[in-house]
Amino acid sequence: VIVMPGDAPPVKRSATLDYGAEIVLYDRERDNREAIGQRLAADRGLAVIPPFDHPHIVAGAGTAALELLDEVGALDLLLTPCGGGGLLSGSSLAAEARFPGCRVIGVEPEAGDDAKRSLETRELQSVHNPRTVADGARTASLGVITFQLVLEHVSQILTVDDAALLRTMFFVWERLKLVVEPTGALAAAALLNRRLDARGRRVGVILSGGNVDFSQVDAWRRMA
Amino acid sequence: VIVMPGDAPPVKRSATLDYGAEIVLYDRERDNREAIGQRLAADRGLAVIPPFDHPHIVAGAGTAALELLDEVGALDLLLTPCGGGGLLSGSSLAAEARFPGCRVIGVEPEAGDDAKRSLETRELQSVHNPRTVADGARTASLGVITFQLVLEHVSQILTVDDAALLRTMFFVWERLKLVVEPTGALAAAALLNRRLDARGRRVGVILSGGNVDFSQVDAWRRMA
Repeated sequence: VIVMPGDAPPVKRSATLDYGAEIVLYDRERDNREAIGQRLAADRGLAVIPPFDHPHIVAGAGTAALELLDEVGALDLLLTPCGGGGLLSGSSLAAEARFPGCRVIGVEPEAGDDAKRSLETRELQSVHNPRTVADGARTASLGVITFQLVLEHVSQILTVDDAALLRTMFFVWERLKLVVEPTGALAAAALLNRRLDARGRRVGVILSGGNVDFSQVDAWRRMA
Repeated sequence: VIVMPGDAPPVKRSATLDYGAEIVLYDRERDNREAIGQRLAADRGLAVIPPFDHPHIVAGAGTAALELLDEVGALDLLLTPCGGGGLLSGSSLAAEARFPGCRVIGVEPEAGDDAKRSLETRELQSVHNPRTVADGARTASLGVITFQLVLEHVSQILTVDDAALLRTMFFVWERLKLVVEPTGALAAAALLNRRLDARGRRVGVILSGGNVDFSQVDAWRRMA
């Protein structure tokens, strides 16, 4: 049983149904998804699997970075998308375990810069349903666990605006032949739009999230 | 120096330029690309690299099948897209070398069924600039070398119409997260649209060609 925002891309909903799940939709403006999940779990005797704020989810998300590092060796920088911080904090643990000198940087959409402000102020900041094409990073804030890990292991959070993000997404589609959703291209967008100085450095980029609603392509092309 | 049809997707042209090539455009209706290539080679002292009808091109194209078979082991069926027949005949040689029992099947667009007719009549047939979204398979006919190899090593040629092809292309984008162009989805389309009986068999599919013009997505969605 998957609790999913009502504005999730239709392609995500139909794939989820085809893979055999039941979907419970919620309204990002009005509903609290954690409360919905808890109620479903209580009513039906289910276990709650949170999207990011749990040690197992963090560890699981970090395996992408672990595989990357085991394949390519030491990196100077590792960039990942950042929404709730599961992927980012898991990646930072993996990088620290393998190559303690590797700096880990998270990238979030400009309109949803809560993680950047949280790291800079060292207090958990939030946003309310930010307007961005990166729907996978509209999370209100980092979690309790992920915020602590970000404080301890992440060097910096960068942001990119939607136009830069979409240009990068199209570049990844056209040149790497990989379908990534806008959120999935966040880390690549920071690098390709020179939001950091990567000259002479070995840089790894995590592309994560491929639920693209292709009915949006024309609108995105106009925004890019 | 790349001789390319004037109606090639803009994304293919701009990527080719970015990778450092010079492009010479020709008109599919009016020009003979082989003649243009020969003239350029003579004028500038270049070597001609034909798109499919050459033993080295056939062998090179066959390495995709070779890698697949070395990774997954014996297959009962192997399906590949078919335009000029380089990929198909190279794949058939690779399959025969590794697993002689593997049947190799080519798939071409319904509007450009010259290879199917060629194999069935055992005489080289052609089409003139067929109307299909599979622009990579609008080739007029198999080549001298590829036709002979198809006769000797290919079991069957199937066709798919553009609507089925586009539905499959979108499926590959949405579920496999791979950008394939319409031509690149031909083999997958034959399988997923049940153009052959694959029940109980181990089937390999070659996806080849990722030059997608994303300005066409809305038009393709209406055709699919």
